[in-house]
Amino acid sequence: MLRPPYTPLVDSLPSTVPFVGPETQERRRGRPFKARIGANENGFGPSPTAVAAMAAAAGEAWKYGDPENHDLKQAIAAVHGVGPENVVVGEGIDGLLGLAVRLLVEPGRAVVTSLGAYPTFNFHVAGFGGRLVTVPYVADRESPDALIDAVRRERPAMVYFANPDNPMGSWWPAETVERFAAAIPEGTLLVLDEAYVEFAPEGTAPRLDCADPRVLRFRTFSKAYGLAGIRIGYAIGEAELVRSFDKIRNHFGVNRIGQAGALAALADTDHLTWIRGKVGAARERIARIAADNGLQALPSATNFVTVDLGRDGDYARRVLAALVERDVFVRMPGVAPQDRCIRIGCGLDAELDYLAEVLPEALAAAG
Amino acid sequence: MLRPPYTPLVDSLPSTVPFVGPETQERRRGRPFKARIGANENGFGPSPTAVAAMAAAAGEAWKYGDPENHDLKQAIAAVHGVGPENVVVGEGIDGLLGLAVRLLVEPGRAVVTSLGAYPTFNFHVAGFGGRLVTVPYVADRESPDALIDAVRRERPAMVYFANPDNPMGSWWPAETVERFAAAIPEGTLLVLDEAYVEFAPEGTAPRLDCADPRVLRFRTFSKAYGLAGIRIGYAIGEAELVRSFDKIRNHFGVNRIGQAGALAALADTDHLTWIRGKVGAARERIARIAADNGLQALPSATNFVTVDLGRDGDYARRVLAALVERDVFVRMPGVAPQDRCIRIGCGLDAELDYLAEVLPEALAAAG
Repeated sequence: MLRPPYTPLVDSLPSTVPFVGPETQERRRGRPFKARIGANENGFGPSPTAVAAMAAAAGEAWKYGDPENHDLKQAIAAVHGVGPENVVVGEGIDGLLGLAVRLLVEPGRAVVTSLGAYPTFNFHVAGFGGRLVTVPYVADRESPDALIDAVRRERPAMVYFANPDNPMGSWWPAETVERFAAAIPEGTLLVLDEAYVEFAPEGTAPRLDCADPRVLRFRTFSKAYGLAGIRIGYAIGEAELVRSFDKIRNHFGVNRIGQAGALAALADTDHLTWIRGKVGAARERIARIAADNGLQALPSATNFVTVDLGRDGDYARRVLAALVERDVFVRMPGVAPQDRCIRIGCGLDAELDYLAEVLPEALAAAG
Repeated sequence: MLRPPYTPLVDSLPSTVPFVGPETQERRRGRPFKARIGANENGFGPSPTAVAAMAAAAGEAWKYGDPENHDLKQAIAAVHGVGPENVVVGEGIDGLLGLAVRLLVEPGRAVVTSLGAYPTFNFHVAGFGGRLVTVPYVADRESPDALIDAVRRERPAMVYFANPDNPMGSWWPAETVERFAAAIPEGTLLVLDEAYVEFAPEGTAPRLDCADPRVLRFRTFSKAYGLAGIRIGYAIGEAELVRSFDKIRNHFGVNRIGQAGALAALADTDHLTWIRGKVGAARERIARIAADNGLQALPSATNFVTVDLGRDGDYARRVLAALVERDVFVRMPGVAPQDRCIRIGCGLDAELDYLAEVLPEALAAAG
């Protein structure tokens, strides 16, 4: 018996996955990592009130979560000074990006992004048959000028822009983003990925008019809120665009324990302030470790620091492999010229102590 | 400014949602339900070891879940006597149904189901442009004969079959399902939804050959395991078909706390046995309440009992409204002739006591 035929689109897709998880690597290696600083997780952890809320919600896990995410949307709306009708909650930014692509991208339609930007967005574009058009980074930043040029040329369904950027940690001030958003032509959606913006300096998040249907801004509980494991993100935008997610989203897809955790996390602004301080200190520490080894840390507005190893991608991949071999989980940018760098997460003191210990060996081993 | 254009397919979709949650109804009503017995949740709750595992995992919620769901897949594979390569884990059966449709259904392609069967499956088929072909229930059961006739005529991408059935609670023995599966022609996938099968009599779950690519069987932690709130389901099938989900699924979509809960729940077979006993007793209780009111409870192999009100859909909708008004959350089948019934979940004793108290009033109010 043959299996039922896939759609031609699915048939055309590769079997590669955007990211291999640290657990997979641990199983292959047969031992755990000593420093888990490769997935931009936040090891300082979530608010204790969020942990308590989730533990309490565990006993009520027999109930489906509220499919409208009502309470969480109200709280998010209050934080951002928008209406709940401007907020859609989903299974992480990853899940919401997939839905946004599905809403707007016909097979063959152009989608613009930067070469080397977030691979999971590209995964979704390919998955719905979109045609990816990439522009290069300029000086290790996503380039609004290059992106808008490509947008004017291609008239794409969407243009992706992360601010701050992953994997480089670079960022633009609010005014630049506002000018970029204002230049988006009718018919194109600006996908503004702000997963890391809580780590950025004041004046990074742009003021955007919620009535403007050309921009959707994406936020997450995975980074500053330390809740990657609950898989909840949200998008803010014009009400009709937001409502259209209801046509295709998995209505009961957001888990109830996560809803409770996110709601509590949002209320604990002291914890968020504390996290910002810890992450800021860890960024400085990573920069010092880099300098101690003759390496240049790039400026970062995120909870990771991208370190320029000063040579080519082959060398950086050897250093990365040598770190992984020494039980340090890190990742690196995928394409040149950014792939001369490795990306180091703002881990706990003990993790960065360990990194400081083994980095010289790893550099030596890479030759 | 106009918003960016949706795809023509999205433009064609209605804004209706498959189910309105009880929380939405509570907000509209301005007060909570006294009996939450309408969503086929399992109020007897999850295994205490699962609750403990989730509470413990809450503190580690800063980590992404394992995107391979490795440990959970191993455990599921062991329970079912299949290989882990035959198991795909996802965000509930709902999430996996959406992915399965996306893998196989081109716009315009036929998909066969029963008129009045699971609306969320239909939501996904419509969402990917499939053409739904329905056959009637026969004597309140999904009809394998009618379904296979339609399959032979339409050569659809998929045929949906729930055993036991929701919303009627009816079921077929394993041999019937095995004959049905054997009759599926090459090119069609049998979507076998077994969300409720743990509540069914021994001899309901068919023996299926995992090497046969014509069947995917879907299971969930939402029903017998009492974990609707964690949003984890799985599908079992032929290895290449299972692997193809990796091309399109949200790899980091399953939450870490849920992974821990599901793993612990699967190991607690004593709790599952206890749940079966509680549900069996509640089914008998609901049948007695029905009989006390001159109504006929249909046989059920699920954790709900569908009660025939003996008149038409308008009457049943009035009874339902009268129950909701009296703080009993219940639902009912959506289409005739099944809509002469209401569907009552196997609630706790106190909930069924309350139902017994208000049902006579509700029937009287409906006239």
